[in-house]
Amino acid sequence: MIERVVLIGGGAVAEALGRRLSEVGVLSAVWCRDSQRAAELAANFEVECCADLESVTDADLYVISVSDRAIDEVSRQLRVKRGALVVHTAGSRSIEEIKCDGAVRGVFYPLQTFTKGRNVDFWNIPLMVESESRLEELASLAEQLSSNVIRSSYEMRRMYHLSAVFACNFVNRMYVAAQEIARIGGIDAQMLNPLIAETAQKALESPDAALLQSGPAARGDWNTIENHLSLLEQSAPEWRDVYELITNKITNGKL
Amino acid sequence: MIERVVLIGGGAVAEALGRRLSEVGVLSAVWCRDSQRAAELAANFEVECCADLESVTDADLYVISVSDRAIDEVSRQLRVKRGALVVHTAGSRSIEEIKCDGAVRGVFYPLQTFTKGRNVDFWNIPLMVESESRLEELASLAEQLSSNVIRSSYEMRRMYHLSAVFACNFVNRMYVAAQEIARIGGIDAQMLNPLIAETAQKALESPDAALLQSGPAARGDWNTIENHLSLLEQSAPEWRDVYELITNKITNGKL
Repeated sequence: MIERVVLIGGGAVAEALGRRLSEVGVLSAVWCRDSQRAAELAANFEVECCADLESVTDADLYVISVSDRAIDEVSRQLRVKRGALVVHTAGSRSIEEIKCDGAVRGVFYPLQTFTKGRNVDFWNIPLMVESESRLEELASLAEQLSSNVIRSSYEMRRMYHLSAVFACNFVNRMYVAAQEIARIGGIDAQMLNPLIAETAQKALESPDAALLQSGPAARGDWNTIENHLSLLEQSAPEWRDVYELITNKITNGKL
Repeated sequence: MIERVVLIGGGAVAEALGRRLSEVGVLSAVWCRDSQRAAELAANFEVECCADLESVTDADLYVISVSDRAIDEVSRQLRVKRGALVVHTAGSRSIEEIKCDGAVRGVFYPLQTFTKGRNVDFWNIPLMVESESRLEELASLAEQLSSNVIRSSYEMRRMYHLSAVFACNFVNRMYVAAQEIARIGGIDAQMLNPLIAETAQKALESPDAALLQSGPAARGDWNTIENHLSLLEQSAPEWRDVYELITNKITNGKL
């Protein structure tokens, strides 16, 4: 049973996980490279702040929630008892990235976008767990944090991560494009908010977003598409290629 | 004052507008090409069903809510008294598309995505109005329907429509991509729902989506980007070009 967890890292994922681990009473200490940030998190979570990585508090589980590139280096520096669980929180890295001597390796990956200082309802976040030998212990802790625990292989997890890039990061870039076009056109981008909300809400309620596709491309309204392309050419030419490519995806290459 | 409105059209926009016009008590009749659909809408809204376009009921306002291409033809067939208001509901068409003899022309454009049979909160939808000479009468009716009436020129309206394509239609295509990748990878696309909801929610709460950008491209995590590109190549090659282009937009062309 996992009763003492040390959190390693100070980013948005670390903060969200730390808050949740602290809520269920298992977080015992935090460490991150920026000692001021570490002190801030430790104070927020009311746990110990470790001074350095080589001498972190003894624990049942070490959660390495650092940038993907840093997992290797941080895990090499970490000193744990033989058989201690050490996990990372990355969607697209294998457990092999963990180089900590004597550790039982694993993954603890929450499928969500996190922002520092922003509270999310962790209970509804899909939480993916993997471990080379102590999966059920890890899953049992995960089930205290989230109602949606998924025992996921690396292959599955990286497919989730890849599709999440489209559903979150690329969606956000479309919002950026819409706002830039609004700014250039001298119109109020906030007017798009009901549309953004309804578009997401429809997708949440339907198993097949393809059936929800609307707009000039879905209607094969070439007159409007040409109109938009010339408007982009005049006002926001840097978004013309995106308009063309996505329109072609919707029309099966008919543009 | 506009007290009697005839609705012409049977699509999703017509249905939503008809419902709202009926709620505020000004809808008097409907017509659409499909007489069965017309009868259904008339029964829903408890108004008269017109048999043909040449002899629609006399009214203060005629709302032509048909496909963009059909505005010309439908408006030519419509017979109205000299000076009657005739508007279309298209985001990217000028009032010149209305060819009805003797009419005062205008536009009534709700900035939202509509689906047949789906009820939306019309009161919060931005409603754009334009008219060649009776703008305040039209705006006054619009203010009964929506809390957010915008007196919009054609130039403004078509910029709103263009940015809406990115914020709605292209966003939906990213959901389609995510679902297709999930299906191909044998994972459950419904697991993306909390992520979809949070991504939209963050954009609704922030004036600048660029500041919210997360993911491998925003972090400059080239290792993960290469990993994703090879995963796409193996599993869903038809989405590789979208991944590359949007990643280049996020990284300012560094891919």
